[in-house]
Amino acid sequence: MIRHSVIFSLKHAKGSAEEQSFLRDAKILATIPGVEKFEQLNQVSPKNDYAFGFSMEFADQAAYTVYNDHPLHVAFVRDRWVPEVGKFLEIDYTPIA
Amino acid sequence: MIRHSVIFSLKHAKGSAEEQSFLRDAKILATIPGVEKFEQLNQVSPKNDYAFGFSMEFADQAAYTVYNDHPLHVAFVRDRWVPEVGKFLEIDYTPIA
Repeated sequence: MIRHSVIFSLKHAKGSAEEQSFLRDAKILATIPGVEKFEQLNQVSPKNDYAFGFSMEFADQAAYTVYNDHPLHVAFVRDRWVPEVGKFLEIDYTPIA
Repeated sequence: MIRHSVIFSLKHAKGSAEEQSFLRDAKILATIPGVEKFEQLNQVSPKNDYAFGFSMEFADQAAYTVYNDHPLHVAFVRDRWVPEVGKFLEIDYTPIA
């Protein structure tokens, strides 16, 4: 299992219609084959300045690659992520046996 | 629900006995009342240079506070975390409704 997550902030104002649109439209990512346990999260720790997180799980690297290369993911990154996200950090976890 | 996590790297060499000792002894945190779904994780994305993650969930802020103030947590941070961890970032998530 690979848990892929990204912690990020948007360029949009907190609580704005643009923010809500981004989060709503990002749910398309959950429809890509192989995506499990898709979550949208508020980042609430005062110890960093990111505002949101997305998290999902893949059974293996093959499923992760299918996601990365999927046209829906490629289009979302190009059309929404790049123009609307201010800062982000990708984190990928595997369980310690 | 609050998902508390920390992404970090150790000062110890990768695969060292000291690294294994740290990870093993950190499991004491899972015994603190209110800690749910405690996980130890390898960070495998090449897009950041952290090596590990811990993740746990609390039912609410009260349970989180019990954990933070618990003598086992306070002692672990003082005796192991501060001297052995090189860099870290705390992330706290709550679900977006």
